[in-house]
Amino acid sequence: MSQANDEYIREESMDDLWNVWYTELHQGKSGLTFKIDRVLESTKSEFQRIEVVETLEFGKALVLYGSLMVAEGDTGAYNEMISHVPLFSHPKPDEILIIGGGDCGCLTNVLMHPEVKRCTMCEIDKMVVEVSKKHFPKLTAGLADPRANLLFEDGKKFIETTDKKFDIVLLDLSDPIGPAADLFQKTFHESVYDRLNDDGIMVAQSESPLFNPHTIKAMYANLKKIFPIVRMYTCLMPIYPSCYWSFAFCSKKYDPIDDFDASRCEATDLSACEYYNKDIHLSAFALPQYVKKLVE
Amino acid sequence: MSQANDEYIREESMDDLWNVWYTELHQGKSGLTFKIDRVLESTKSEFQRIEVVETLEFGKALVLYGSLMVAEGDTGAYNEMISHVPLFSHPKPDEILIIGGGDCGCLTNVLMHPEVKRCTMCEIDKMVVEVSKKHFPKLTAGLADPRANLLFEDGKKFIETTDKKFDIVLLDLSDPIGPAADLFQKTFHESVYDRLNDDGIMVAQSESPLFNPHTIKAMYANLKKIFPIVRMYTCLMPIYPSCYWSFAFCSKKYDPIDDFDASRCEATDLSACEYYNKDIHLSAFALPQYVKKLVE
Repeated sequence: MSQANDEYIREESMDDLWNVWYTELHQGKSGLTFKIDRVLESTKSEFQRIEVVETLEFGKALVLYGSLMVAEGDTGAYNEMISHVPLFSHPKPDEILIIGGGDCGCLTNVLMHPEVKRCTMCEIDKMVVEVSKKHFPKLTAGLADPRANLLFEDGKKFIETTDKKFDIVLLDLSDPIGPAADLFQKTFHESVYDRLNDDGIMVAQSESPLFNPHTIKAMYANLKKIFPIVRMYTCLMPIYPSCYWSFAFCSKKYDPIDDFDASRCEATDLSACEYYNKDIHLSAFALPQYVKKLVE
Repeated sequence: MSQANDEYIREESMDDLWNVWYTELHQGKSGLTFKIDRVLESTKSEFQRIEVVETLEFGKALVLYGSLMVAEGDTGAYNEMISHVPLFSHPKPDEILIIGGGDCGCLTNVLMHPEVKRCTMCEIDKMVVEVSKKHFPKLTAGLADPRANLLFEDGKKFIETTDKKFDIVLLDLSDPIGPAADLFQKTFHESVYDRLNDDGIMVAQSESPLFNPHTIKAMYANLKKIFPIVRMYTCLMPIYPSCYWSFAFCSKKYDPIDDFDASRCEATDLSACEYYNKDIHLSAFALPQYVKKLVE
């Protein structure tokens, strides 16, 4: 007998009924799951869906195109590693370009370096910056810096048409599906190479060493055809698939270990960093056996 | 109107209906979730529940006391790091003792070292070894080695009553709840200290740097009262909470970096290792800022 129309008394409070979990699966086989306290934003820009959720584990988190990008309590590893490793490997990092990087965490870390004259950030989706500014004040602190130069345009088009040159270009992209897909291709990396000064460095996020071996193999093989120095480094990132992330350090001249400026690293105010330090810089290029095989 | 007794046609095959996921939560806030193809064992020993599940992501996996312990495809990081780091830091690792370690992965890695004369493994729960032997032939390969000396007894009792001394003692324990709880206490570590030779090394698994900061702070503070050299090292472990795990290297004499025997490492057949190598050994002691704060 159906009880659908019967009256009854709920014994739970309404709070107990908010059982929303954000789960990010890898090929339907495994995943990371986070209990959500509230959904703070759920919108759609011209380019992608944008969500901000309040997780119990890591605080507020930004979700782009269905992937967790950054969270208040994520240890900062990704944004610190993509920026400080190349910045302390280049003796004169004047002109920096970030492609992507809408959450502004990379920008904020780059601008911790007093040597930087200008940090241009070319992000296709203005709404990501607006949402980040609203919800992540610490992450977006760099926006207030007069050296920050924001462009809201297509990174590929910008790289192919600008006549400017840069000391360091950082590819702070979402996954190679969606709006960032073209920016993982060899032709794009060649265009970046052309926009770098003769001693320039490019760093690109290069996905999970555990879950994206095919992407990594293809990507590094291509990068080695373009740059004389290509080295992978990794970090622990608790909100990304497999909690393990990699970066391609691609350089015309400087080596990230031999040319690491330890004394400048010690003299720079990195008190806001939760992950990066000198030891981490020097050890991040050591790769487990199963990762070595992908890039050697 | 209820349809419970109506006939209908299912459009899925029965295979599609096996939607079993193994999910391990951290304080109800976040978790790792794995799709399960089959449950191969589900039993209970005198001490704990024991399960073997076939995951789609990492193959067969052993679950003890509700925690994932090891999986065929887990990269081997945990077992390789708990064993090779101390073994290559000690110039004459003759007598090794493992407390716990029922899946035998640690034993198998220790016995890759031809220098080892005997590896005693003191595991309280015989059924864990039996289940592991049945399902994980590669992991348990060391059991066939004549240098393997298995004891099925309480590790605490053994340490407190044996008159033997060891060069290296490895505490390969499950979490500090359940059967292993006592083996995380200071009095137990003091007893281990007494059973080590004058140049002995103890390594203890010391939980997740991200999720167990209180355990780690207390544990390292106590260990430093016992051993002159106490250093944390970490690895990426994709089936453990936060995918990030730590080990306490506790030593009477040898330092894991200064006394690392690189040439012996290169001469040893480590072809079965998927994670450990010389670079990883030397870099594993570099700690992110947020972890440094816990142990300094």
